Amino acid sequence: MPNAENDGVAHILARVRQSRPLVHNITNHVVMNLTANALLACGASPVMSHAREEVGAMASLASSLVINIGTLEPDWVEAMIIAGRTAGARGIPVVLDPVGAGATSYRTETTHRILGECRVTVLRGNASEVKASAGEISVTRGVDSSAAVADAREAALALSRSKNLVTAVTGPEDFVTDGERTFIVRNGHPVMGTVTGMGCTATALIAAFVAETSDAAYGTAAALSFFGVAGEKAAARTTGPGSFLVALLDTIASLEPEELEQMSRVERVA
Amino acid sequence: MPNAENDGVAHILARVRQSRPLVHNITNHVVMNLTANALLACGASPVMSHAREEVGAMASLASSLVINIGTLEPDWVEAMIIAGRTAGARGIPVVLDPVGAGATSYRTETTHRILGECRVTVLRGNASEVKASAGEISVTRGVDSSAAVADAREAALALSRSKNLVTAVTGPEDFVTDGERTFIVRNGHPVMGTVTGMGCTATALIAAFVAETSDAAYGTAAALSFFGVAGEKAAARTTGPGSFLVALLDTIASLEPEELEQMSRVERVA
Amino acid sequence: MPNAENDGVAHILARVRQSRPLVHNITNHVVMNLTANALLACGASPVMSHAREEVGAMASLASSLVINIGTLEPDWVEAMIIAGRTAGARGIPVVLDPVGAGATSYRTETTHRILGECRVTVLRGNASEVKASAGEISVTRGVDSSAAVADAREAALALSRSKNLVTAVTGPEDFVTDGERTFIVRNGHPVMGTVTGMGCTATALIAAFVAETSDAAYGTAAALSFFGVAGEKAAARTTGPGSFLVALLDTIASLEPEELEQMSRVERVA
Repeated sequence: MPNAENDGVAHILARVRQSRPLVHNITNHVVMNLTANALLACGASPVMSHAREEVGAMASLASSLVINIGTLEPDWVEAMIIAGRTAGARGIPVVLDPVGAGATSYRTETTHRILGECRVTVLRGNASEVKASAGEISVTRGVDSSAAVADAREAALALSRSKNLVTAVTGPEDFVTDGERTFIVRNGHPVMGTVTGMGCTATALIAAFVAETSDAAYGTAAALSFFGVAGEKAAARTTGPGSFLVALLDTIASLEPEELEQMSRVERVA
Repeated sequence: MPNAENDGVAHILARVRQSRPLVHNITNHVVMNLTANALLACGASPVMSHAREEVGAMASLASSLVINIGTLEPDWVEAMIIAGRTAGARGIPVVLDPVGAGATSYRTETTHRILGECRVTVLRGNASEVKASAGEISVTRGVDSSAAVADAREAALALSRSKNLVTAVTGPEDFVTDGERTFIVRNGHPVMGTVTGMGCTATALIAAFVAETSDAAYGTAAALSFFGVAGEKAAARTTGPGSFLVALLDTIASLEPEELEQMSRVERVA
Repeated sequence: MPNAENDGVAHILARVRQSRPLVHNITNHVVMNLTANALLACGASPVMSHAREEVGAMASLASSLVINIGTLEPDWVEAMIIAGRTAGARGIPVVLDPVGAGATSYRTETTHRILGECRVTVLRGNASEVKASAGEISVTRGVDSSAAVADAREAALALSRSKNLVTAVTGPEDFVTDGERTFIVRNGHPVMGTVTGMGCTATALIAAFVAETSDAAYGTAAALSFFGVAGEKAAARTTGPGSFLVALLDTIASLEPEELEQMSRVERVA
């Protein structure tokens, strides 16, 4: 695979559509349907599986693995660890979404356990979740972020350096770093904050993109830009959250690499 | 908080949108996505969490708690009890949706157990579910109601008086009572009987509204009226269940307090 | 009930809408909402229930049972067996969807166990899943099919004969056999391959149809034709997966028996 930063977001999207990477998701009950449809729409092939009896086998077949703790429980956490270890041992990218880390100690501790026991490639969260993932004290109100953006970016840099992974802090602007290089993504639309599962969808699309590039940091930024552009286009022709979600899936499916290239706003800042 | 009955449905809606109450949901697999989006659309902040390891902590953070037994299993029931007790001890309103009570003894017994062990603020169900919750023999066909409306209203009054809670029997007309005062809500549209999760959505919206008023009976009637008005408006511009669901979310998000006030049909009958 | 083959797809649809069969679903997390709405739209009454504590009671109330292993785990498998045995003992049709059979040994073995311990009336899968269900070596990539169609049809005939059930291999053309009679269904649209849950929805609709005919093979073909026609009509007025799903539910609800009769392409080939 070529170095992604040199060939742009459009080429990664084109490769996803051509290769149809199999993305194994251990994710939450709220978003499973949306996640599967978003992955299909972008060109990837989703599979959902959470039983300890099969997650190792399923992860072995996959091009990338999503671990999302949005509605966690003990059996699921064990399955996440098994799948994460299997993927890590085989060089399959692992993308972690620490939903609600900081809100309860169970979520914070599970996040730290996964980071400790699995080789995570990318962690994506909002500001509160990233701070809690980095071990900082943070106050997460439910699953929404309340942390200051600047603090979260410092936490992201520290987390990326200590754990050797890519950290993405998403919000009005997305911040993506591997501890050395840093990208800012300025795509998206405020309506994306009014529907459920947008963070989880971003995480799943990151998994599809990093399956098709060896540059996980740039692949992460590219996926967030792709998703943000789709959100912008969908928002432009809808007037509420229900019609936005419909248009979002349509747009993810129809967005051409050329238009993505034109609308993408990924800036390398470090 | 002011007494809700005196300031009307519009003011409660305005307070939900301003305060963004955190609603903790332990609900069923079928409706989680719709419930989260409906709560976001009305202005509240949803969180879904069902692990015994964290439901106490999560309920403590919440402004209200939804317990919905639509796809129950033993671990979830234990979590419901923990969360319900925690909320009750802290004065956080608990809204119970006894989905399918009367259809199987497991559902009926679980409903009675929750009513016995937790301080439930509001119980919402269809006629069959309310009768079964009140301890009467009832025949629930799957999760749909088959009980006579008049019988259910008697059962609701008895349940509210014996358990000191608000009971809502929803159907073509909604009946809300705290055992003394009684409201009839005449909003809604027949298409709402043709899509899944309408009862569950009503329950979640009740949780958002009773978080913002000290008058749980009127707050319940106000939430049902709000949801019914949104349904009427959405139905007026759609021709089937798929497009209705999309328009419903759009309408929940866009319905202004003034229009709600005009279209709301809540009558105090006792 | 009349023999279905003699009275056509339109009459079965009309009977579903009149009788509103209760369809008990033990299905996967991804599609529960869509499945419930599709069943409601076609005129049936869905109930979802997976706890061992109640699946026997719920299956006893039902007109048919769906067992779908899309996101299986051990407790759910036990519930599937209990429900399947209960339904079988009472002559209630059981429709099995072996999602991902062949992808992991857990799925393949669970499929064989259900086939061994329950009286399955209809099994519906893609080519890979049917081959794996029939005990043949197959390579399933995640939950998508990769097997050759001709091989799968041979496997379907063998499976139907050995297990005395109806097997449906769905794809661009659907193949339905009870081991003696065979039907080809030529309805549907390619966009149905780009959204999640289409196979699962087909399975649920089969359960609604076989509840209303004593001819399970023809009832299966009729359900697949009904679903395919709805897909054709929905695809004709949409341009992407999101709007297609909305239109699909609208069309399932509005499709009249007469139009179905005209557009249905079910051919008996053996």
